[in-house]
Amino acid sequence: MSAIDDLVTELARLPTIGRKSALRLTYHLLRQPAEQSHRLALALVTLADKVRPCTECFNLTESDRCTLCTDPRRDRSMVCVVEEASDIPSIERTGEFRGLYHVLGGRLAPLDGVGPSDLTVDQLVARVTSGAIREVIVATNPKLEGEATALYLQEQLRPTGVTVSRLARGLPVGGDLEYADGVTIVQALSARRAM
Amino acid sequence: MSAIDDLVTELARLPTIGRKSALRLTYHLLRQPAEQSHRLALALVTLADKVRPCTECFNLTESDRCTLCTDPRRDRSMVCVVEEASDIPSIERTGEFRGLYHVLGGRLAPLDGVGPSDLTVDQLVARVTSGAIREVIVATNPKLEGEATALYLQEQLRPTGVTVSRLARGLPVGGDLEYADGVTIVQALSARRAM
Repeated sequence: MSAIDDLVTELARLPTIGRKSALRLTYHLLRQPAEQSHRLALALVTLADKVRPCTECFNLTESDRCTLCTDPRRDRSMVCVVEEASDIPSIERTGEFRGLYHVLGGRLAPLDGVGPSDLTVDQLVARVTSGAIREVIVATNPKLEGEATALYLQEQLRPTGVTVSRLARGLPVGGDLEYADGVTIVQALSARRAM
Repeated sequence: MSAIDDLVTELARLPTIGRKSALRLTYHLLRQPAEQSHRLALALVTLADKVRPCTECFNLTESDRCTLCTDPRRDRSMVCVVEEASDIPSIERTGEFRGLYHVLGGRLAPLDGVGPSDLTVDQLVARVTSGAIREVIVATNPKLEGEATALYLQEQLRPTGVTVSRLARGLPVGGDLEYADGVTIVQALSARRAM
């Protein structure tokens, strides 16, 4: 039946949802009141039409500047650089960072054709050059491409004289030494701290 | 941000999708062209507004009667009774059953307040009484409530004189005796066949 097939096809386009899950979700929705599907549809359309990047930090927003950039209580002297807007909630949840953000829009990945001009590197340098920023905390992912991106940013920011720091690498809290990978253990050893 | 929160909330209402997956799906959609969200929204609304139960077998359809009931090549002397419309594709995929279906709309579950009047039992008896049906194959799930439902159907259909059969229980093909549960092994033993 085309309406069912259509929804299954569209749901299966989403990551982690295969055709079987898509079919299960579709039948689930058919057992719910039609309003539930309508609300989900409205939320999808609203998101697609209203959300855009913040003109200052490239976080997602429904206005010109995002709620973090317009919050007068944030510390405007610190900027945390993340790969994606979706990384911000993880840091915000900790409640430990009160500065601003800068969303790169990805990481340097020459093999995928992602170069510096595909990211918001120039905009970051401009923000640092023009403003009251004292420290840039690079929070790209602790993977090869994230590390390369961090080094590239450090180089680009050097002429501005701003302090550039990087999130510490080490054993995850609650993790198990037995199951930790070797690279993490090496990082944890070399970054060991006096007790 | 409200548009993101709204979509996360709506997605998280779906089974097997928690808030974390919902957030991941939302950010994924934000990285796609807006048309993808629009197509998904349209598919949801179309499904909710157009799909309804077949007047003959209660399978899902966009017309009065479903594509199976209106297919002249189907064997109208056999009816396979399933709990949900979502069970039909599993049987259809085998290509081994060429008869019609009857969707009960659930299974008897007194503890959940589901009694015979909540299912399409009367409509099944009426179909069998009025028509050319020679055999009813009960394909409710091989669980306690499915078994109870099968027994109830058998009783209700007895006055019509129709043949009532049940899907065989036994070891699943490709399964492992070592990991089979005891009840299945007991069923497989008592239903053993000469080689």
